[in-house]
Amino acid sequence: MARIPSPAPGNRILAAYEFYASDRSAARRLARQIAVEQTVEMPLSAVPAGVREAVVGRIEELHPATTGRWRAVISYEPRLATDLPGLLNLLFGNVSMMSGVRLVDFELPPALLRTFAGPSFGIEGIRRMSRVFRRPLICSAIKPVGLSAKELADLAYRFARAGVDIVKDDHGLADQSYAAFAARVERCAEAVGKANQETGNNALYFPHLTGRLESMEERVETVRAAGCRGVLLAAMLVGLDWFRGFAARGEFAILAHPSFSGAYLQRSCGIAPEALLGRLFRLVGADAVIFANPGGRFPVSRASCEAIAGNLRAPWGDLRAAFPVAGGGVDAKRADYWIERYGTDLILLISSSFYARRDFERAAFELTEKVKRHE
Amino acid sequence: MARIPSPAPGNRILAAYEFYASDRSAARRLARQIAVEQTVEMPLSAVPAGVREAVVGRIEELHPATTGRWRAVISYEPRLATDLPGLLNLLFGNVSMMSGVRLVDFELPPALLRTFAGPSFGIEGIRRMSRVFRRPLICSAIKPVGLSAKELADLAYRFARAGVDIVKDDHGLADQSYAAFAARVERCAEAVGKANQETGNNALYFPHLTGRLESMEERVETVRAAGCRGVLLAAMLVGLDWFRGFAARGEFAILAHPSFSGAYLQRSCGIAPEALLGRLFRLVGADAVIFANPGGRFPVSRASCEAIAGNLRAPWGDLRAAFPVAGGGVDAKRADYWIERYGTDLILLISSSFYARRDFERAAFELTEKVKRHE
Repeated sequence: MARIPSPAPGNRILAAYEFYASDRSAARRLARQIAVEQTVEMPLSAVPAGVREAVVGRIEELHPATTGRWRAVISYEPRLATDLPGLLNLLFGNVSMMSGVRLVDFELPPALLRTFAGPSFGIEGIRRMSRVFRRPLICSAIKPVGLSAKELADLAYRFARAGVDIVKDDHGLADQSYAAFAARVERCAEAVGKANQETGNNALYFPHLTGRLESMEERVETVRAAGCRGVLLAAMLVGLDWFRGFAARGEFAILAHPSFSGAYLQRSCGIAPEALLGRLFRLVGADAVIFANPGGRFPVSRASCEAIAGNLRAPWGDLRAAFPVAGGGVDAKRADYWIERYGTDLILLISSSFYARRDFERAAFELTEKVKRHE
Repeated sequence: MARIPSPAPGNRILAAYEFYASDRSAARRLARQIAVEQTVEMPLSAVPAGVREAVVGRIEELHPATTGRWRAVISYEPRLATDLPGLLNLLFGNVSMMSGVRLVDFELPPALLRTFAGPSFGIEGIRRMSRVFRRPLICSAIKPVGLSAKELADLAYRFARAGVDIVKDDHGLADQSYAAFAARVERCAEAVGKANQETGNNALYFPHLTGRLESMEERVETVRAAGCRGVLLAAMLVGLDWFRGFAARGEFAILAHPSFSGAYLQRSCGIAPEALLGRLFRLVGADAVIFANPGGRFPVSRASCEAIAGNLRAPWGDLRAAFPVAGGGVDAKRADYWIERYGTDLILLISSSFYARRDFERAAFELTEKVKRHE
């Protein structure tokens, strides 16, 4: 896919959309419709000429994309987006309700981009935290929901002993009665600390920060008190702007989870994975972004996963690079293959592939030993 | 579409999904995959038997839906969802990333439903506020972005004079330099008040509450000081749980806007409009929900719009009924037709159809006079 130039020329916000159209003139009509819908959203004849000139989106490019589809780059006046909710609305507000229109890329002018702090830690920060400077990191999730805090802590202990770098909560773990939030976080943090003392390793435990927004501060305090340096946070469950505000505090490294975001990631509508997970999640401050990897449980293409990883790590204004986290059913046996493809600035999220083995601790140990050779 | 029984039997959370499958056994495999993915999310062989029994989703129904598609009702242990983010994750977290799986309906057991306040005002509350007790209401948006606060206030004044019941900001109006948030809200509220004094009408002005979440309290204070009784709030821009928390305060009536939600509303993935806009938006406290109406600018079906309206108004535990707000390009000439179809517990959102006329104030006046005959 041809990329939008970065930074956006003319200091405008650029958005690339793809959609079905029968021919160039139909494509142009649809592109114009998007440019109007996302800005003045009313009959152009009723818009004063000065406003029309200043505010209506402009078609910068229009050309055929894959079969039957066209790609339009539309530029917007940057003053239209004064914050993240405004930017989301401008890029994909009402147009999200059109049929088969997909936002495939976007770019912000430098002044607007600078209003976003982006990742507070990024790849370098997480590497410093983990004391792993060259090789890929291994992350595993403790699960399933339904286990007690003690049982989950035992899993965390065993993963940490096996050399896993980041032990995270499964995103299904919240504050269920089986293992209430505070009890789980305290026990798991303690268990990972104990394993580190025994092995001399430096495994991190990232609990899933979730709940009603009004009880989040209390939970953050629990996480802080337990000595955790990072959290798992599902951007679409807490809301993108809450995520941004939390990340901007800079206190915890954030591993972003894509739960509830899949409606955006479908093939011919929504937002392209590399734009949503690769750019938007980084913009709002994810230090590492989990995405479903090919060959696992979700139907994703290799090209789009490589594009996500590319966008997370590419130079982008002053934003720190974020870790791609390949997950969603990665087979431990294929770890070398994925490291080869993505490079070493990578976190491999491997859980089920370990659990499926009788001795999951042994399976995790074998992999982490192998991956350490990349250091 | 056959509805899920309400309240959910056996005190479990019910979710109905539709998806493609070649035959019954393929459909059953996919339904099982969903039931596992949304709960334990790991190989069943590695899940302790007690946890498997307690936690894994159960297939309650499985039958063919429309051509090539199947419908499965899966029930979940209610203890898995302790709050809204947890519920979203349970109903449509990872499964949102599967291909062509659509959440078409859900139901909560009474105890869980009671943890949601739902609309604080609802249809009755907005009617009391408007002093319009039987007829449909007319709502119009001031726009476009790019006008000054004074120009927007003049539009608000003219709509209010023309008998419009609710004058709202366009959802594209935020805090742009053309008409900064505080100046706009103050001037528009004042203009609508002036019109009310002159006409004896009781038009309401609902500004668009938007911005960084950390500056929302300041904006709420501006809205409160201006004497506004309600706001326009875009659930997917501020985040569903922030929306819920704000609605639960019960201070402002909330007109929910669907911006950025369209990715969920596509035909064979995401969340069915009647489930997202008709149930989830009501659950999180929308007093009135804007949806794109057929015959306007967006490709929507009459059946799905009627299902949205039906769900917003149907008995549902102790939740107040919410107003359906038909918008997205409704033609003023067709007002009677839509009132006939939806009934009088309806808000018609008509803006472009007025603006397209040379004398929009006259056009709005003619319609409001006609609608008043329904009182």
